Amino acid sequence: MRTELTERFGIDYPIFGFTPSQEVAAAISRAGGMGVLGCVRFNEASELDEVLEWMHENTDGKPFGVDVVMPAKIPTEGSKVDLESMIPPEHRAFVERTLDDLGVPPLPDGNRVDAGVLGWLHSVARSHVDVAMAHARKYGQIKLIANALGSPPPDVIGVAHDNGVQVAALAGAKDHALHHVEARVDIVIAQGYEGGGHTGEVTSMVLWPELVDAVGDRAPVLAAGGVGSGRQMAAAIALGAQGVWMGTYWLTAAEYRLGATGDGPSTVQKALLAASSRDTVRRRIYSGKPARLLKTKWTDAWDAPGAPEPLPMPLQNLLVGEAHARISQADDAGVVAMPAGQIVGRLNSITPVAELIADLVSEYQESAARLGKTLD
Amino acid sequence: MRTELTERFGIDYPIFGFTPSQEVAAAISRAGGMGVLGCVRFNEASELDEVLEWMHENTDGKPFGVDVVMPAKIPTEGSKVDLESMIPPEHRAFVERTLDDLGVPPLPDGNRVDAGVLGWLHSVARSHVDVAMAHARKYGQIKLIANALGSPPPDVIGVAHDNGVQVAALAGAKDHALHHVEARVDIVIAQGYEGGGHTGEVTSMVLWPELVDAVGDRAPVLAAGGVGSGRQMAAAIALGAQGVWMGTYWLTAAEYRLGATGDGPSTVQKALLAASSRDTVRRRIYSGKPARLLKTKWTDAWDAPGAPEPLPMPLQNLLVGEAHARISQADDAGVVAMPAGQIVGRLNSITPVAELIADLVSEYQESAARLGKTLD
Repeated sequence: MRTELTERFGIDYPIFGFTPSQEVAAAISRAGGMGVLGCVRFNEASELDEVLEWMHENTDGKPFGVDVVMPAKIPTEGSKVDLESMIPPEHRAFVERTLDDLGVPPLPDGNRVDAGVLGWLHSVARSHVDVAMAHARKYGQIKLIANALGSPPPDVIGVAHDNGVQVAALAGAKDHALHHVEARVDIVIAQGYEGGGHTGEVTSMVLWPELVDAVGDRAPVLAAGGVGSGRQMAAAIALGAQGVWMGTYWLTAAEYRLGATGDGPSTVQKALLAASSRDTVRRRIYSGKPARLLKTKWTDAWDAPGAPEPLPMPLQNLLVGEAHARISQADDAGVVAMPAGQIVGRLNSITPVAELIADLVSEYQESAARLGKTLD
Repeated sequence: MRTELTERFGIDYPIFGFTPSQEVAAAISRAGGMGVLGCVRFNEASELDEVLEWMHENTDGKPFGVDVVMPAKIPTEGSKVDLESMIPPEHRAFVERTLDDLGVPPLPDGNRVDAGVLGWLHSVARSHVDVAMAHARKYGQIKLIANALGSPPPDVIGVAHDNGVQVAALAGAKDHALHHVEARVDIVIAQGYEGGGHTGEVTSMVLWPELVDAVGDRAPVLAAGGVGSGRQMAAAIALGAQGVWMGTYWLTAAEYRLGATGDGPSTVQKALLAASSRDTVRRRIYSGKPARLLKTKWTDAWDAPGAPEPLPMPLQNLLVGEAHARISQADDAGVVAMPAGQIVGRLNSITPVAELIADLVSEYQESAARLGKTLD
């Protein structure tokens, strides 16, 4: 396949795969797409450094990317302790009570954890950028840095460009996309309402062409939200995007082993395999900003009468960070806390990444042929 | 263009245009699509009879359709008076207070009106069916009857088939679509979350291919919700649909004169022209079931703290029927009560139907060509 983005990155398919799993990200790049490693789960720069080294060793010299979370509008100062003090006690009590009600045990060692929490802080995201840039200089394989929340700070964009790394940023509305291109973002990721994680209100069908028109030739658009098949990839190209950005699709890849304790599917994967397209909700409970999650007893609890309003970012992250760790260890498919898009309904088997990509490409070709036939 | 549905109906383009305006419906059929007249606004069978006669005289023998509202699960018995008594006084007081606050004057003659209310009752919908079937027998032009709420009753499907009329029904989820095909519905209209009027939670990008797969070769799928350009039409075909069903797109057609008092755009059209894709909300306030509406001061009032929960269908229709009539006459673009999909953001000019269809077709062809080029 050939689009502006396959040419720009020298990849076979305009398939950008966002995933927190290095095994999956590497497999996507090896299969001819662009694996993009989500960094928010790394609390320490040294952890990310090791994983990027592993990525280098397992990608046959193919390009890959990293995804960091740099919210534009939250305090960049303040230690975790300062922030903790801003969380109302009623919120903590609600979380404790809910976990008890749902039968989620405390963490085995009785300690609180920081897992997946510090990565949301600006200072940590900055250290992720530094590590990624050092790797970009060292091996020249990191070709993309993506940001899920707002335009990255100007100096980050500058340093990325200086290192031959392109910058992509998610947008859920036209004004976000325009802000990105004015800030010298290279690629706009148009994320529709149906996507997993942070989303706006406008759906992919409406948003993608709107952003394509809005940014014009200033940046190519990657279509995100609702892509889980070659037909949806064809729809993305038909709507004017230059490629697709997929996240949920890879969560049941055979190589995705985060949270797995044995050989079979993890608890989260079991929940994903069982879910239909109607089993997601878009709520502020994960991060403080609206994000689409798998609907479970955990999200139901926050919807019940008497539940508190979620806190703003990053306080909500801090509030639920330990809860997420407890839920992860509880091994109950009914109580997972997991971002997922509406295409979760298509996830019905555990499949190797190479096969997932081959499926996308062959179905894409069939779709393109179907369109051609209507014009015969 | 050629798809299963163009062949089935002998039309030039698989463009199904739902509209309450006979002028627009006739123009769509004349231009090679399938105009589908919304009947819910007709309180009396004789009104509909006259309008269908007009349609016959103004469609050059081309096929057209009708759309009736037959909810599957509401009481079919009960006069308007019986139903009125089921509306809580607090709800009436809220509506009165809100209209006063918004500066919406009472109706000029001081009378209550039934406009757009009785059409929601089952008995009235049945009389619409009878009139449409008589016209189908008389002129053979009515080729489609569509239902926006559930599968039509079996005898309606039977009489339609006996008269050479195909039956289409809206579906917002897989189980609805399966129910339709089991009930011998001929065409499934897959209406995504972003559509105007009644919608489910699953967006078009995800829903369309899901329903295409679910019904298989038992029925072709029309793609609805989010279609306002040839690119979106190409996406629909890429996703496996056999055509598109569009409603919002025609509201700013030059031929759409409902509610217009002079030569220029009506108040509602002014509101539509000004709206962006983010200016809709999906609420139960219009009919009792979730329906997407233009966001205005009227929808804001129902979102404000202290506003009552909307009533179930058909009570909510009765509750707001007079309010809708008052709002229509108030001539204030900030307080309209109007179903509209997210593609309202694309409505930026008053354009004749023939041109709207030509735009769809030429952009469709460009999109198909773009897809082909990615495979060169």
